[in-house]
Amino acid sequence: METLSEDKSFGGVQGVYCHAASQTNCEMNFAVYMPPEAHTTPVPVLWYLSGLTCTHANVVEKGEYRRVAAELGLAIIAPDSSPRGVDIPDEPDNWKFGSGAGFYLDASEAPYEHNYQMYSYILDELPALVGDAFNVDLNRQGIFGHSMGGHGALIMALRNQDRFRSVSAFAPIVNPSTAEWSSYAFTRYLGTDKGKWRAYDAVALVEDGFVFPEILIDQGEGDSFLNDGLRPWLLEAAVADTEIALTLRMQPGYSHSYYFISSFMEDHLRWHAARL
Amino acid sequence: METLSEDKSFGGVQGVYCHAASQTNCEMNFAVYMPPEAHTTPVPVLWYLSGLTCTHANVVEKGEYRRVAAELGLAIIAPDSSPRGVDIPDEPDNWKFGSGAGFYLDASEAPYEHNYQMYSYILDELPALVGDAFNVDLNRQGIFGHSMGGHGALIMALRNQDRFRSVSAFAPIVNPSTAEWSSYAFTRYLGTDKGKWRAYDAVALVEDGFVFPEILIDQGEGDSFLNDGLRPWLLEAAVADTEIALTLRMQPGYSHSYYFISSFMEDHLRWHAARL
Repeated sequence: METLSEDKSFGGVQGVYCHAASQTNCEMNFAVYMPPEAHTTPVPVLWYLSGLTCTHANVVEKGEYRRVAAELGLAIIAPDSSPRGVDIPDEPDNWKFGSGAGFYLDASEAPYEHNYQMYSYILDELPALVGDAFNVDLNRQGIFGHSMGGHGALIMALRNQDRFRSVSAFAPIVNPSTAEWSSYAFTRYLGTDKGKWRAYDAVALVEDGFVFPEILIDQGEGDSFLNDGLRPWLLEAAVADTEIALTLRMQPGYSHSYYFISSFMEDHLRWHAARL
Repeated sequence: METLSEDKSFGGVQGVYCHAASQTNCEMNFAVYMPPEAHTTPVPVLWYLSGLTCTHANVVEKGEYRRVAAELGLAIIAPDSSPRGVDIPDEPDNWKFGSGAGFYLDASEAPYEHNYQMYSYILDELPALVGDAFNVDLNRQGIFGHSMGGHGALIMALRNQDRFRSVSAFAPIVNPSTAEWSSYAFTRYLGTDKGKWRAYDAVALVEDGFVFPEILIDQGEGDSFLNDGLRPWLLEAAVADTEIALTLRMQPGYSHSYYFISSFMEDHLRWHAARL
């Protein structure tokens, strides 16, 4: 693991690191914010998964999470949203597929299956690395994210209730199997058998009996992707007859941007801290 | 004035605008955050001046000021740091001069005097525009900034105590006349008569009898520019026998970056709000 940068911020340290990842077969960057409390005691970990086109840098620069993470004693880890590199199969002109669009799944189809293993990378490889390198308590993990990363957080939590104690999302893609902007990627990563897609689709997972105690979702009503890509009401309908307690907050006037995310970041951090 | 973007954030609106500026003879961008309180009452204005190489975007994205500005009811205005455009005299390979390096002065030397009039632009033209377009109370103005922008805030406040009620700075260049990285620009903008430089140098202004009741400065001790470009102790020495109350806080471990600025942004906003 190589340190790309470390800066003191709100009493803790915001770092950016790089390592040769075996599951994605490429160099992967990730960001870690360690709160001051980590000097003396292992701290819980909150994973932030980013949206389409984003790297770790978007939330690091615009997410405004460090003040409250420092106060609450949370480590915030932001992985990249896909494998990247000159040797990685990609469609450079397509922002909804390839680089910046890993969709947090394990691809089964050639030529993508060699690198696009973001589900396993984030669930297994990166936590092992972080657990070795930082003073964190991996028995206390939560996960959240934005848009495609909200989708990633929801599927990871639903499929790994033993791993994560808390989950939330900003404007998540709750049903990527049927969303125009994600079905293209799912076809190429997973093939045309839509039965295989269900393992990476929050609404389908709930329909198939996966549960999580509580979910918090904030969604801007001014979000231009609301009706085509996001549609949180599909998850609301799916959980209606389950034990899942979904708190879905529609936020008037807010867009899909980090101006929206940062406005409600504190609420999400406090939601997770109360459950970690 | 043209609206480039407007986004709801923390209940208010973060906008970015453009206008044809007469004092700099070019199109100028600037950012305005209007807090929710402005819906019902004129709000005080706090000017943020940016550092070398920056535009309005750096503080908008990384400054983390909106939460507290919304709470306190402050309009935050971030101008650009220089004139820009294909017709503007520049040295593109020199980050300490020309575009992104206007130094908040009125140039007297050719070919720069036609555009590099940032002092007058920020003191006169932009406030008039903002006063017409937004629900602000121009009788309550404060000013702050970072690095070159901290220099700008200090000289504007010292020379215009009737205009500004409060001033603060993050890691300001307090004595640009003698700092290696600014003397090059001062020579080209103002000529070789160093007597003319004193009007744009906080330490020289204090030596020449200009005063301001209170100044807050935060300075990171891990700032790589501390000893060459910034040297806040020169201002501390200059104000020693004056009526100026300088609060200089040296912050261990902090760098020159927005990780530092954002960590102390709340303190600065509360400092200004208490005086506005």
